[in-house]
Amino acid sequence: MHFTAQTSANGVLERDFTVGEVPGVLWSPAEGAGPAPLVLIGHGGGRDKKAPPVAGRAHLFVTRCGFHVAAIDAPGHAGRPRTAADEREVPVMQQAMATGEPVGPIVRRYNADIAERAVPEWLETLDALEELPEIGGPVGYFGLNMGTAIGVPLTAADPRIKAAVFGIFWHDDLVDTAKRITVPIEFVLQWDDQHIPRESGLALFDAFASAEKTLHANAGKHKEVPRFEADSAVRFFARHLGKAETV
Amino acid sequence: MHFTAQTSANGVLERDFTVGEVPGVLWSPAEGAGPAPLVLIGHGGGRDKKAPPVAGRAHLFVTRCGFHVAAIDAPGHAGRPRTAADEREVPVMQQAMATGEPVGPIVRRYNADIAERAVPEWLETLDALEELPEIGGPVGYFGLNMGTAIGVPLTAADPRIKAAVFGIFWHDDLVDTAKRITVPIEFVLQWDDQHIPRESGLALFDAFASAEKTLHANAGKHKEVPRFEADSAVRFFARHLGKAETV
Repeated sequence: MHFTAQTSANGVLERDFTVGEVPGVLWSPAEGAGPAPLVLIGHGGGRDKKAPPVAGRAHLFVTRCGFHVAAIDAPGHAGRPRTAADEREVPVMQQAMATGEPVGPIVRRYNADIAERAVPEWLETLDALEELPEIGGPVGYFGLNMGTAIGVPLTAADPRIKAAVFGIFWHDDLVDTAKRITVPIEFVLQWDDQHIPRESGLALFDAFASAEKTLHANAGKHKEVPRFEADSAVRFFARHLGKAETV
Repeated sequence: MHFTAQTSANGVLERDFTVGEVPGVLWSPAEGAGPAPLVLIGHGGGRDKKAPPVAGRAHLFVTRCGFHVAAIDAPGHAGRPRTAADEREVPVMQQAMATGEPVGPIVRRYNADIAERAVPEWLETLDALEELPEIGGPVGYFGLNMGTAIGVPLTAADPRIKAAVFGIFWHDDLVDTAKRITVPIEFVLQWDDQHIPRESGLALFDAFASAEKTLHANAGKHKEVPRFEADSAVRFFARHLGKAETV
Protein backbone atom coordinates (compact mmCIF):
# COMPACT_ATOMS: atom_id res chain seq x y z
CA MET A 1 0.00 0.00 0.00
CA HIS A 2 1.36 3.36 -1.05
CA PHE A 3 0.00 6.75 -0.03
CA THR A 4 0.29 9.13 -2.98
CA ALA A 5 -1.38 12.35 -1.83
CA GLN A 6 -2.81 13.91 1.31
CA THR A 7 -5.13 16.82 2.07
CA SER A 8 -7.09 17.86 5.15
CA ALA A 9 -10.23 19.98 5.51
CA ASN A 10 -13.12 20.37 7.94
CA GLY A 11 -11.74 17.83 10.36
CA VAL A 12 -11.27 15.15 7.68
CA LEU A 13 -7.90 13.82 6.51
CA GLU A 14 -8.07 12.54 2.92
CA ARG A 15 -5.29 10.26 1.66
CA ASP A 16 -5.06 8.81 -1.85
CA PHE A 17 -3.44 5.40 -2.03
CA THR A 18 -2.76 2.48 -4.34
CA VAL A 19 -2.86 -1.21 -3.53
CA GLY A 20 -1.19 -2.90 -6.48
CA GLU A 21 -2.82 -1.32 -9.52
CA VAL A 22 -5.95 -0.27 -7.66
CA PRO A 23 -6.36 3.43 -6.78
CA GLY A 24 -8.16 4.19 -3.54
CA VAL A 25 -8.85 6.92 -1.03
CA LEU A 26 -8.97 6.81 2.75
CA TRP A 27 -10.85 9.44 4.74
CA SER A 28 -10.03 9.64 8.47
CA PRO A 29 -10.65 11.89 11.47
CA ALA A 30 -8.03 14.65 11.25
CA GLU A 31 -7.44 14.26 14.96
CA GLY A 32 -7.12 10.54 15.52
CA ALA A 33 -8.02 9.14 18.92
CA GLY A 34 -6.91 5.52 18.79
CA PRO A 35 -8.04 2.72 16.49
CA ALA A 36 -11.49 3.18 14.98
CA PRO A 37 -13.81 1.10 12.76
CA LEU A 38 -13.71 1.25 8.97
CA VAL A 39 -16.55 1.67 6.45
CA LEU A 40 -15.96 0.63 2.84
CA ILE A 41 -17.96 2.49 0.18
CA GLY A 42 -18.61 0.98 -3.24
CA HIS A 43 -19.46 3.63 -5.85
CA GLY A 44 -22.22 3.38 -8.47
CA GLY A 45 -21.82 2.44 -12.13
CA GLY A 46 -20.00 5.01 -14.25
CA ARG A 47 -18.79 6.91 -11.16
CA ASP A 48 -15.51 6.81 -9.24
CA LYS A 49 -14.11 6.63 -5.73
CA LYS A 50 -14.50 10.39 -5.09
CA ALA A 51 -17.92 10.90 -6.72
CA PRO A 52 -20.01 13.35 -4.65
CA PRO A 53 -22.34 10.67 -3.16
CA VAL A 54 -19.27 8.74 -1.98
CA ALA A 55 -17.30 11.72 -0.65
CA GLY A 56 -20.40 13.21 1.00
CA ARG A 57 -21.23 10.02 2.89
CA ALA A 58 -17.57 9.50 3.79
CA HIS A 59 -17.46 12.94 5.43
CA LEU A 60 -20.61 12.11 7.41
CA PHE A 61 -19.22 8.80 8.66
CA VAL A 62 -15.91 10.41 9.65
CA THR A 63 -17.26 13.54 11.32
CA ARG A 64 -20.32 12.04 13.02
CA CYS A 65 -18.99 8.62 14.03
CA GLY A 66 -15.20 9.01 14.05
CA PHE A 67 -14.88 6.13 11.55
CA HIS A 68 -12.35 5.67 8.76
CA VAL A 69 -13.84 5.35 5.28
CA ALA A 70 -12.24 3.81 2.20
CA ALA A 71 -13.29 3.72 -1.45
CA ILE A 72 -11.57 2.29 -4.52
CA ASP A 73 -12.17 2.79 -8.24
CA ALA A 74 -14.10 -0.19 -9.63
CA PRO A 75 -12.58 -2.24 -12.46
CA GLY A 76 -13.01 -0.53 -15.83
CA HIS A 77 -13.91 2.77 -14.15
CA ALA A 78 -12.18 6.14 -13.71
CA GLY A 79 -9.43 5.63 -16.27
CA ARG A 80 -8.54 2.11 -15.10
CA PRO A 81 -7.67 -0.41 -17.84
CA ARG A 82 -10.73 -1.73 -19.65
CA THR A 83 -11.30 -5.35 -20.60
CA ALA A 84 -13.05 -6.61 -23.72
CA ALA A 85 -16.22 -6.88 -21.61
CA ASP A 86 -15.94 -3.22 -20.60
CA GLU A 87 -15.47 -2.17 -24.23
CA ARG A 88 -18.44 -4.27 -25.33
CA GLU A 89 -20.96 -3.68 -22.55
CA VAL A 90 -20.67 0.02 -21.83
CA PRO A 91 -21.89 1.20 -25.27
CA VAL A 92 -24.69 -1.39 -25.22
CA MET A 93 -25.81 -0.09 -21.82
CA GLN A 94 -25.59 3.54 -22.91
CA GLN A 95 -27.61 2.81 -26.02
CA ALA A 96 -30.29 1.04 -24.00
CA MET A 97 -30.53 4.03 -21.64
CA ALA A 98 -30.76 6.41 -24.61
CA THR A 99 -33.45 4.46 -26.45
CA GLY A 100 -35.49 3.54 -23.37
CA GLU A 101 -34.98 -0.23 -23.73
CA PRO A 102 -35.01 -2.23 -20.48
CA VAL A 103 -31.54 -1.81 -18.97
CA GLY A 104 -31.90 -4.51 -16.31
CA PRO A 105 -30.55 -7.50 -18.27
CA ILE A 106 -27.52 -5.52 -19.47
CA VAL A 107 -26.70 -3.87 -16.14
CA ARG A 108 -27.03 -7.15 -14.26
CA ARG A 109 -24.79 -9.05 -16.69
CA TYR A 110 -22.14 -6.32 -16.80
CA ASN A 111 -22.15 -5.65 -13.07
CA ALA A 112 -21.77 -9.37 -12.33
CA ASP A 113 -18.67 -9.32 -14.52
CA ILE A 114 -17.30 -6.26 -12.70
CA ALA A 115 -18.06 -7.80 -9.30
CA GLU A 116 -15.99 -10.88 -10.10
CA ARG A 117 -13.01 -8.63 -10.68
CA ALA A 118 -13.79 -6.19 -7.87
CA VAL A 119 -14.19 -8.61 -4.93
CA PRO A 120 -10.53 -9.79 -4.91
CA GLU A 121 -9.41 -6.16 -5.20
CA TRP A 122 -11.51 -5.18 -2.18
CA LEU A 123 -10.15 -8.15 -0.17
CA GLU A 124 -6.56 -7.08 -0.91
CA THR A 125 -7.39 -3.46 -0.12
CA LEU A 126 -8.97 -4.46 3.19
CA ASP A 127 -5.94 -6.59 4.09
CA ALA A 128 -3.71 -3.57 3.47
CA LEU A 129 -5.93 -1.10 5.33
CA GLU A 130 -6.11 -3.34 8.39
CA GLU A 131 -2.34 -3.12 8.76
CA LEU A 132 -2.64 0.60 9.51
CA PRO A 133 -2.44 1.18 13.27
CA GLU A 134 -5.28 3.72 13.23
CA ILE A 135 -7.76 1.16 11.85
CA GLY A 136 -9.22 -1.37 14.24
CA GLY A 137 -12.58 -2.92 15.05
CA PRO A 138 -15.47 -4.12 12.93
CA VAL A 139 -15.83 -3.21 9.25
CA GLY A 140 -18.96 -1.92 7.49
CA TYR A 141 -19.85 -1.77 3.80
CA PHE A 142 -22.02 0.80 2.02
CA GLY A 143 -22.97 0.54 -1.63
CA LEU A 144 -26.08 1.11 -3.76
CA ASN A 145 -26.58 0.24 -7.45
CA MET A 146 -23.31 -1.30 -8.71
CA GLY A 147 -22.07 -0.90 -5.13
CA THR A 148 -24.62 -3.57 -4.19
CA ALA A 149 -23.70 -5.86 -7.09
CA ILE A 150 -20.13 -5.83 -5.73
CA GLY A 151 -20.96 -5.56 -2.03
CA VAL A 152 -23.23 -8.59 -1.71
CA PRO A 153 -20.60 -11.12 -2.87
CA LEU A 154 -17.90 -9.20 -0.96
CA THR A 155 -19.89 -9.29 2.30
CA ALA A 156 -20.66 -12.98 1.81
CA ALA A 157 -16.94 -13.65 1.24
CA ASP A 158 -15.41 -11.64 4.09
CA PRO A 159 -16.38 -12.25 7.72
CA ARG A 160 -14.67 -9.00 8.73
CA ILE A 161 -17.69 -7.10 7.36
CA LYS A 162 -20.17 -6.90 10.25
CA ALA A 163 -22.93 -4.65 8.83
CA ALA A 164 -23.90 -3.43 5.37
CA VAL A 165 -26.15 -0.96 3.56
CA PHE A 166 -27.32 -2.19 0.15
CA GLY A 167 -30.08 -1.36 -2.31
CA ILE A 168 -31.29 -0.15 -5.70
CA PHE A 169 -30.55 -3.40 -7.50
CA TRP A 170 -32.27 -6.42 -9.07
CA HIS A 171 -32.59 -9.69 -7.16
CA ASP A 172 -31.96 -12.19 -9.97
CA ASP A 173 -28.22 -12.84 -9.72
CA LEU A 174 -27.76 -11.92 -6.04
CA VAL A 175 -30.43 -13.91 -4.19
CA ASP A 176 -28.39 -17.06 -3.67
CA THR A 177 -25.44 -15.07 -2.31
CA ALA A 178 -27.70 -12.89 -0.14
CA LYS A 179 -29.07 -16.04 1.51
CA ARG A 180 -25.60 -16.67 2.97
CA ILE A 181 -25.39 -13.21 4.60
CA THR A 182 -26.38 -12.96 8.26
CA VAL A 183 -24.99 -9.56 9.35
CA PRO A 184 -27.38 -6.62 9.97
CA ILE A 185 -28.58 -5.05 6.73
CA GLU A 186 -30.20 -1.73 5.86
CA PHE A 187 -31.72 -1.98 2.38
CA VAL A 188 -32.74 1.03 0.27
CA LEU A 189 -35.43 0.67 -2.42
CA GLN A 190 -37.16 3.23 -4.60
CA TRP A 191 -40.91 2.50 -4.67
CA ASP A 192 -41.38 3.99 -8.15
CA ASP A 193 -38.09 2.84 -9.72
CA GLN A 194 -38.50 2.97 -13.50
CA HIS A 195 -35.73 0.39 -14.05
CA ILE A 196 -36.00 -2.11 -11.19
CA PRO A 197 -39.38 -3.83 -10.66
CA ARG A 198 -40.62 -3.32 -7.10
CA GLU A 199 -40.99 -7.08 -6.62
CA SER A 200 -37.37 -7.60 -7.63
CA GLY A 201 -36.06 -5.22 -4.98
CA LEU A 202 -38.36 -6.73 -2.35
CA ALA A 203 -37.16 -10.23 -3.29
CA LEU A 204 -33.53 -9.24 -2.77
CA PHE A 205 -34.31 -7.72 0.64
CA ASP A 206 -36.25 -10.86 1.53
CA ALA A 207 -33.31 -13.12 0.65
CA PHE A 208 -30.88 -11.91 3.32
CA ALA A 209 -30.65 -14.41 6.18
CA SER A 210 -29.95 -11.57 8.65
CA ALA A 211 -31.94 -11.59 11.91
CA GLU A 212 -31.76 -7.79 11.87
CA LYS A 213 -32.60 -6.23 8.53
CA THR A 214 -34.55 -3.11 7.65
CA LEU A 215 -36.04 -2.09 4.33
CA HIS A 216 -36.28 1.64 3.61
CA ALA A 217 -38.57 2.06 0.62
CA ASN A 218 -39.13 5.64 -0.48
CA ALA A 219 -41.59 7.08 -2.94
CA GLY A 220 -39.69 8.25 -6.02
CA LYS A 221 -37.78 7.11 -9.06
CA HIS A 222 -34.44 5.32 -9.51
CA LYS A 223 -32.21 8.32 -8.83
CA GLU A 224 -34.42 10.03 -6.23
CA VAL A 225 -33.14 8.40 -3.02
CA PRO A 226 -33.87 11.05 -0.35
CA ARG A 227 -30.96 12.76 1.35
CA PHE A 228 -32.18 11.68 4.79
CA GLU A 229 -31.17 8.10 3.92
CA ALA A 230 -27.53 9.23 4.31
CA ASP A 231 -28.30 10.20 7.92
CA SER A 232 -30.00 6.89 8.44
CA ALA A 233 -26.88 5.05 7.27
CA VAL A 234 -24.84 7.04 9.80
CA ARG A 235 -27.08 5.84 12.62
CA PHE A 236 -27.10 2.28 11.26
CA PHE A 237 -23.30 2.05 11.34
CA ALA A 238 -23.12 3.86 14.68
CA ARG A 239 -25.39 1.11 16.11
CA HIS A 240 -23.49 -1.80 14.62
CA LEU A 241 -19.83 -0.80 14.50
CA GLY A 242 -19.68 0.11 18.15
CA LYS A 243 -19.10 3.84 18.21
CA ALA A 244 -21.73 6.30 19.36
CA GLU A 245 -22.90 8.85 16.85
CA THR A 246 -21.35 12.10 18.04
CA VAL A 247 -23.74 14.66 16.55
CA MET B 1 -61.48 21.34 28.23
CA HIS B 2 -60.64 20.76 31.88
CA PHE B 3 -57.23 20.04 33.34
CA THR B 4 -57.59 17.55 36.19
CA ALA B 5 -54.04 16.77 37.29
CA GLN B 6 -50.50 17.95 36.69
CA THR B 7 -47.03 16.54 37.29
CA SER B 8 -43.58 17.42 36.01
CA ALA B 9 -40.41 15.33 35.68
CA ASN B 10 -37.26 15.26 33.54
CA GLY B 11 -38.16 18.43 31.70
CA VAL B 12 -41.66 17.22 30.77
CA LEU B 13 -44.91 18.70 32.08
CA GLU B 14 -47.73 16.12 32.10
CA ARG B 15 -51.32 17.35 32.38
CA ASP B 16 -54.39 15.12 32.47
CA PHE B 17 -57.49 16.63 30.90
CA THR B 18 -61.01 15.86 29.79
CA VAL B 19 -62.82 17.10 26.70
CA GLY B 20 -66.47 16.24 27.30
CA GLU B 21 -66.41 12.62 28.45
CA VAL B 22 -63.04 11.86 26.84
CA PRO B 23 -59.99 11.56 29.13
CA GLY B 24 -56.72 12.76 27.69
CA VAL B 25 -53.16 13.70 28.58
CA LEU B 26 -50.97 16.51 27.30
CA TRP B 27 -47.18 16.33 27.58
CA SER B 28 -45.31 19.63 27.10
CA PRO B 29 -41.83 21.09 27.54
CA ALA B 30 -41.55 22.05 31.23
CA GLU B 31 -39.91 25.28 30.16
CA GLY B 32 -42.12 26.60 27.38
CA ALA B 33 -40.54 28.85 24.75
CA GLY B 34 -43.46 30.16 22.72
CA PRO B 35 -46.01 28.23 20.63
CA ALA B 36 -44.84 24.81 19.43
CA PRO B 37 -46.24 22.08 17.14
CA LEU B 38 -48.41 19.25 18.47
CA VAL B 39 -48.15 15.51 17.88
CA LEU B 40 -51.22 13.33 18.52
CA ILE B 41 -50.56 9.73 19.55
CA GLY B 42 -53.17 7.03 19.04
CA HIS B 43 -52.60 4.02 21.33
CA GLY B 44 -52.86 0.36 20.31
CA GLY B 45 -55.80 -1.98 20.93
CA GLY B 46 -56.36 -2.92 24.57
CA ARG B 47 -53.97 -0.20 25.76
CA ASP B 48 -54.60 3.33 27.05
CA LYS B 49 -53.37 6.90 26.68
CA LYS B 50 -50.46 6.42 29.11
CA ALA B 51 -49.32 2.96 27.97
CA PRO B 52 -45.50 2.75 27.98
CA PRO B 53 -45.10 2.92 24.16
CA VAL B 54 -47.22 6.10 24.15
CA ALA B 55 -45.58 7.79 27.13
CA GLY B 56 -42.10 6.81 25.96
CA ARG B 57 -42.57 8.33 22.51
CA ALA B 58 -44.25 11.39 23.99
CA HIS B 59 -41.19 12.05 26.15
CA LEU B 60 -38.92 11.71 23.09
CA PHE B 61 -40.99 14.17 21.03
CA VAL B 62 -41.10 16.69 23.88
CA THR B 63 -37.47 16.52 24.96
CA ARG B 64 -35.85 16.16 21.52
CA CYS B 65 -38.11 18.40 19.43
CA GLY B 66 -39.80 20.72 21.92
CA PHE B 67 -43.22 19.57 20.70
CA HIS B 68 -46.44 19.12 22.66
CA VAL B 69 -47.90 15.62 22.58
CA ALA B 70 -51.50 14.58 23.28
CA ALA B 71 -53.14 11.19 23.69
CA ILE B 72 -56.73 10.22 24.55
CA ASP B 73 -58.26 6.95 25.68
CA ALA B 74 -59.96 5.24 22.73
CA PRO B 75 -63.69 4.43 22.90
CA GLY B 76 -64.35 1.30 24.97
CA HIS B 77 -60.83 1.38 26.42
CA ALA B 78 -59.33 2.16 29.84
CA GLY B 79 -62.56 2.06 31.81
CA ARG B 80 -64.56 4.15 29.34
CA PRO B 81 -68.19 3.11 28.76
CA ARG B 82 -68.50 0.06 26.54
CA THR B 83 -71.06 -0.34 23.76
CA ALA B 84 -72.75 -3.56 22.72
CA ALA B 85 -70.05 -3.89 20.02
CA ASP B 86 -67.30 -3.64 22.66
CA GLU B 87 -69.00 -6.29 24.82
CA ARG B 88 -69.46 -8.59 21.84
CA GLU B 89 -66.16 -8.18 19.97
CA VAL B 90 -63.54 -8.15 22.72
CA PRO B 91 -64.19 -11.73 23.91
CA VAL B 92 -64.35 -12.96 20.29
CA MET B 93 -60.97 -11.34 19.61
CA GLN B 94 -59.43 -12.72 22.80
CA GLN B 95 -60.67 -16.20 21.99
CA ALA B 96 -59.22 -16.03 18.47
CA MET B 97 -55.85 -14.96 19.91
CA ALA B 98 -55.97 -17.80 22.46
CA THR B 99 -56.90 -20.50 19.94
CA GLY B 100 -54.62 -19.27 17.14
CA GLU B 101 -57.48 -18.52 14.72
CA PRO B 102 -56.82 -15.71 12.21
CA VAL B 103 -57.46 -12.48 14.11
CA GLY B 104 -57.45 -10.19 11.07
CA PRO B 105 -61.15 -10.25 10.19
CA ILE B 106 -62.17 -9.63 13.82
CA VAL B 107 -59.58 -6.91 14.54
CA ARG B 108 -60.39 -5.06 11.32
CA ARG B 109 -64.15 -5.16 11.93
CA TYR B 110 -63.86 -4.08 15.56
CA ASN B 111 -61.26 -1.38 14.93
CA ALA B 112 -63.38 0.09 12.14
CA ASP B 113 -66.22 0.38 14.64
CA ILE B 114 -63.93 2.04 17.20
CA ALA B 115 -62.52 4.41 14.58
CA GLU B 116 -66.00 5.68 13.71
CA ARG B 117 -66.45 6.70 17.32
CA ALA B 118 -62.87 7.88 17.86
CA VAL B 119 -62.49 10.30 14.94
CA PRO B 120 -65.09 12.83 16.16
CA GLU B 121 -63.55 12.65 19.64
CA TRP B 122 -60.09 13.43 18.24
CA LEU B 123 -61.50 16.35 16.22
CA GLU B 124 -63.10 17.85 19.33
CA THR B 125 -59.93 17.25 21.33
CA LEU B 126 -57.80 18.94 18.68
CA ASP B 127 -60.18 21.92 18.58
CA ALA B 128 -59.80 22.30 22.34
CA LEU B 129 -56.00 21.83 22.34
CA GLU B 130 -55.54 24.46 19.64
CA GLU B 131 -57.13 27.07 21.89
CA LEU B 132 -54.20 26.75 24.30
CA PRO B 133 -51.74 29.61 23.71
CA GLU B 134 -48.69 27.32 23.97
CA ILE B 135 -49.85 25.18 21.03
CA GLY B 136 -49.28 26.55 17.53
CA GLY B 137 -48.06 25.36 14.16
CA PRO B 138 -48.57 22.14 12.20
CA VAL B 139 -49.96 18.97 13.78
CA GLY B 140 -48.58 15.45 13.44
CA TYR B 141 -50.18 12.07 14.14
CA PHE B 142 -48.47 8.90 15.34
CA GLY B 143 -50.29 5.58 15.69
CA LEU B 144 -49.57 1.92 14.94
CA ASN B 145 -52.01 -1.03 15.09
CA MET B 146 -55.39 0.37 16.23
CA GLY B 147 -53.70 3.77 16.18
CA THR B 148 -53.52 3.39 12.40
CA ALA B 149 -57.12 2.19 12.09
CA ILE B 150 -58.14 5.45 13.79
CA GLY B 151 -55.41 7.69 12.41
CA VAL B 152 -55.95 7.07 8.70
CA PRO B 153 -59.56 8.31 8.67
CA LEU B 154 -58.63 11.08 11.12
CA THR B 155 -55.77 12.33 8.92
CA ALA B 156 -57.99 12.17 5.83
CA ALA B 157 -60.65 14.18 7.68
CA ASP B 158 -58.53 16.92 9.22
CA PRO B 159 -56.27 19.17 7.10
CA ARG B 160 -54.52 20.41 10.25
CA ILE B 161 -52.57 17.11 10.32
CA LYS B 162 -49.48 17.71 8.16
CA ALA B 163 -47.47 14.49 8.66
CA ALA B 164 -48.22 11.03 10.06
CA VAL B 165 -46.57 7.78 11.14
CA PHE B 166 -48.73 4.71 10.56
CA GLY B 167 -48.23 0.96 10.31
CA ILE B 168 -48.82 -2.59 11.53
CA PHE B 169 -52.31 -2.90 10.05
CA TRP B 170 -54.23 -4.59 7.25
CA HIS B 171 -55.01 -2.73 4.03
CA ASP B 172 -58.55 -3.98 3.34
CA ASP B 173 -60.74 -1.33 4.95
CA LEU B 174 -58.24 1.56 4.83
CA VAL B 175 -57.05 1.67 1.21
CA ASP B 176 -59.79 3.93 -0.11
CA THR B 177 -59.25 6.43 2.69
CA ALA B 178 -55.45 6.25 2.36
CA LYS B 179 -55.76 7.22 -1.31
CA ARG B 180 -57.08 10.62 -0.19
CA ILE B 181 -54.08 11.34 2.03
CA THR B 182 -51.27 13.45 0.55
CA VAL B 183 -49.21 14.51 3.60
CA PRO B 184 -45.78 12.92 4.24
CA ILE B 185 -46.07 9.41 5.70
CA GLU B 186 -43.65 7.12 7.51
CA PHE B 187 -45.06 3.60 7.49
CA VAL B 188 -43.87 0.79 9.79
CA LEU B 189 -44.28 -2.85 8.75
CA GLN B 190 -43.05 -6.08 10.32
CA TRP B 191 -41.63 -8.34 7.61
CA ASP B 192 -42.49 -11.55 9.50
CA ASP B 193 -45.81 -10.45 11.02
CA GLN B 194 -47.71 -13.59 11.99
CA HIS B 195 -51.09 -11.79 11.85
CA ILE B 196 -50.84 -9.34 8.94
CA PRO B 197 -49.88 -10.73 5.51
CA ARG B 198 -46.85 -8.91 4.11
CA GLU B 199 -48.74 -8.09 0.92
CA SER B 200 -51.52 -6.48 2.95
CA GLY B 201 -49.15 -4.08 4.71
CA LEU B 202 -47.38 -3.25 1.44
CA ALA B 203 -50.75 -2.57 -0.22
CA LEU B 204 -51.68 -0.09 2.50
CA PHE B 205 -48.33 1.74 2.16
CA ASP B 206 -48.80 1.77 -1.62
CA ALA B 207 -52.25 3.36 -1.33
CA PHE B 208 -51.19 6.68 0.20
CA ALA B 209 -51.19 9.47 -2.41
CA SER B 210 -48.33 11.23 -0.60
CA ALA B 211 -45.43 12.45 -2.76
CA GLU B 212 -43.16 11.81 0.23
CA LYS B 213 -43.69 8.47 1.91
CA THR B 214 -41.22 6.01 3.40
CA LEU B 215 -41.75 2.37 4.31
CA HIS B 216 -39.69 0.98 7.17
CA ALA B 217 -40.01 -2.80 7.04
CA ASN B 218 -38.11 -4.65 9.75
CA ALA B 219 -37.38 -8.33 10.14
CA GLY B 220 -39.42 -9.66 13.04
CA LYS B 221 -42.89 -10.56 14.21
CA HIS B 222 -45.99 -8.47 14.95
CA LYS B 223 -44.85 -7.10 18.31
CA GLU B 224 -41.12 -6.85 17.53
CA VAL B 225 -40.94 -3.32 16.09
CA PRO B 226 -37.33 -2.27 16.87
CA ARG B 227 -36.74 0.53 19.34
CA PHE B 228 -34.79 2.58 16.79
CA GLU B 229 -38.07 3.21 14.95
CA ALA B 230 -39.00 5.58 17.80
CA ASP B 231 -35.89 7.64 17.00
CA SER B 232 -36.80 7.58 13.34
CA ALA B 233 -40.25 9.00 14.14
CA VAL B 234 -38.56 11.83 16.07
CA ARG B 235 -36.53 12.78 13.01
CA PHE B 236 -39.54 12.41 10.72
CA PHE B 237 -41.60 14.87 12.76
CA ALA B 238 -38.60 17.18 13.21
CA ARG B 239 -38.33 17.35 9.39
CA HIS B 240 -42.01 17.95 8.76
CA LEU B 241 -43.33 19.97 11.68
CA GLY B 242 -40.70 22.64 11.38
CA LYS B 243 -38.59 22.35 14.51
CA ALA B 244 -35.04 21.08 14.47
CA GLU B 245 -34.31 17.99 16.48
CA THR B 246 -32.33 19.28 19.48
CA VAL B 247 -30.35 16.17 20.40
